Amino acid sequence: MTATPRTAVVIGCGTTGTSVALALTAAGTSVALVDDDPGAVAEAAALGAGTAWTPGLPPADLVVVSTAPSAVADAVHDAQSRGLGHVYTDTAATKDIVCAEAELRGCDLKGYVPGHPLAGADAPGRDDADAARFTGRPWVVCPYETTPAWALETVDALIAACGAHRVDLAPHVHDRIAAELSHAPHLIAAAYTTRFADSSEAFLRLAGEELQAAVRTAGGDPWLWGDVLAHNAGPVADVLDRVAGELARAAAVLREGDSCAPLELAPTLQEGRRGQLALQRAGHGRTARDAPAGGRG
Amino acid sequence: MTATPRTAVVIGCGTTGTSVALALTAAGTSVALVDDDPGAVAEAAALGAGTAWTPGLPPADLVVVSTAPSAVADAVHDAQSRGLGHVYTDTAATKDIVCAEAELRGCDLKGYVPGHPLAGADAPGRDDADAARFTGRPWVVCPYETTPAWALETVDALIAACGAHRVDLAPHVHDRIAAELSHAPHLIAAAYTTRFADSSEAFLRLAGEELQAAVRTAGGDPWLWGDVLAHNAGPVADVLDRVAGELARAAAVLREGDSCAPLELAPTLQEGRRGQLALQRAGHGRTARDAPAGGRG
Repeated sequence: MTATPRTAVVIGCGTTGTSVALALTAAGTSVALVDDDPGAVAEAAALGAGTAWTPGLPPADLVVVSTAPSAVADAVHDAQSRGLGHVYTDTAATKDIVCAEAELRGCDLKGYVPGHPLAGADAPGRDDADAARFTGRPWVVCPYETTPAWALETVDALIAACGAHRVDLAPHVHDRIAAELSHAPHLIAAAYTTRFADSSEAFLRLAGEELQAAVRTAGGDPWLWGDVLAHNAGPVADVLDRVAGELARAAAVLREGDSCAPLELAPTLQEGRRGQLALQRAGHGRTARDAPAGGRG
Repeated sequence: MTATPRTAVVIGCGTTGTSVALALTAAGTSVALVDDDPGAVAEAAALGAGTAWTPGLPPADLVVVSTAPSAVADAVHDAQSRGLGHVYTDTAATKDIVCAEAELRGCDLKGYVPGHPLAGADAPGRDDADAARFTGRPWVVCPYETTPAWALETVDALIAACGAHRVDLAPHVHDRIAAELSHAPHLIAAAYTTRFADSSEAFLRLAGEELQAAVRTAGGDPWLWGDVLAHNAGPVADVLDRVAGELARAAAVLREGDSCAPLELAPTLQEGRRGQLALQRAGHGRTARDAPAGGRG
């Protein structure tokens, strides 16, 4: 494994960029911060994520682009043109269009390794930035066929500094998985919680913690999520159509109002429980595997 | 407030019934347990919830029916016929049909106060029973116009023993609220997790804790949930149709594939965030209000 990068530039001081910068700083990397908003740089710096980038710095070992998906290709191309670093990666939540755009935009693909850390809970604000956000979590990379070993080694060092583990996926496979596990669930939660936007507090106080947990993702940044969903449109639409169809079917069964409704809903409820248990088991497995030795149980 | 009941019968030793029995026992009530399954009674008794009911006991101060909605009216009628107690209540998750069925079945409505404790997270097994399950939570009661004060006072004492607070609602209002806050979210989670029933563990390990939390309710007992949904069919179907429509609309926007998608999704994402924040605030408010003095913040 390559040593931790000595120097890095983090472009985009949102929650993810700031968290990566905090993890790199903690690992001993000297981190320079870039954001269109000088206030964002100042806030990230105040959190201990690094210092504001200044012209004249020598090319960094690593440049991490942490922007919304639609801005990645331009940001990588611009940073490469200015010679900000030797190896580039990004953290955007979609990969298929991002990878294609980087190629079309004329980025130097030998130096760019598309990536996506699958962090924990949605964290809409910079104040949620946390060096431990990636600890024990998968970090997807989507190398091009031409990606050289030296570029991957630098990204490996980033992933190690963040305490994550690398998972290689083809971009379109990543996007189908992300649609199922994150993007579609976000839109479903948001579609659900629109109902509560103007509800009385007396009504909302009757909700349990379970509902609150179920829709927490809907608190994410609407602009960023709109960008993510639009960049993963096909896979997300497939999931939404499947779920919409199941809900409409269940509603029709319920409206029939006969005594067979429980029987007709049983397959969904039983398969749903099997799926929930499988997901829960995989989570336990992940925790057990990723915990330090002796951490099981 | 009436003193804690000296004696109670709990009919149905599932998670809710056993939890009520544990809370009553902790409050000093002598609790007799009833269930069609003798093993369930034995397990609840072993948890400290009370002792098995035996013929010849004098009528109890309170009888709590904790069965699925479809079994409540018969259970109340049967228990009243046998003179098991003076005041009867139930804990079923639907109220409109249950209240009507109790009337049609010929139950003595002066002695029966329909109720529904809005407990915390879904707890599919008896091992999840917990006397603290209702602490600080709302406990809905749906009195008939003819319900006498003495019956309500006994139910007040039950609610106090469980550490909950009483919320009076008309049955159909309760059911609309329960559809929004619990029943429809359950079916949506189940419809979502069917997809994972036969997924590879490698795929499921890529899921974050947020998705696990979002679909936790789908782990509930399929038979019980089928019964609940069928007993609250209209209100649940209304919510499902609304959400299905929103998801189908979002899928259509995404499939158009033009650059306006983020703009067209923005209202859903923005209103969804407003709704999520309102729900979160109400939860904080509830916690702050229900916490002991000085517990705010």
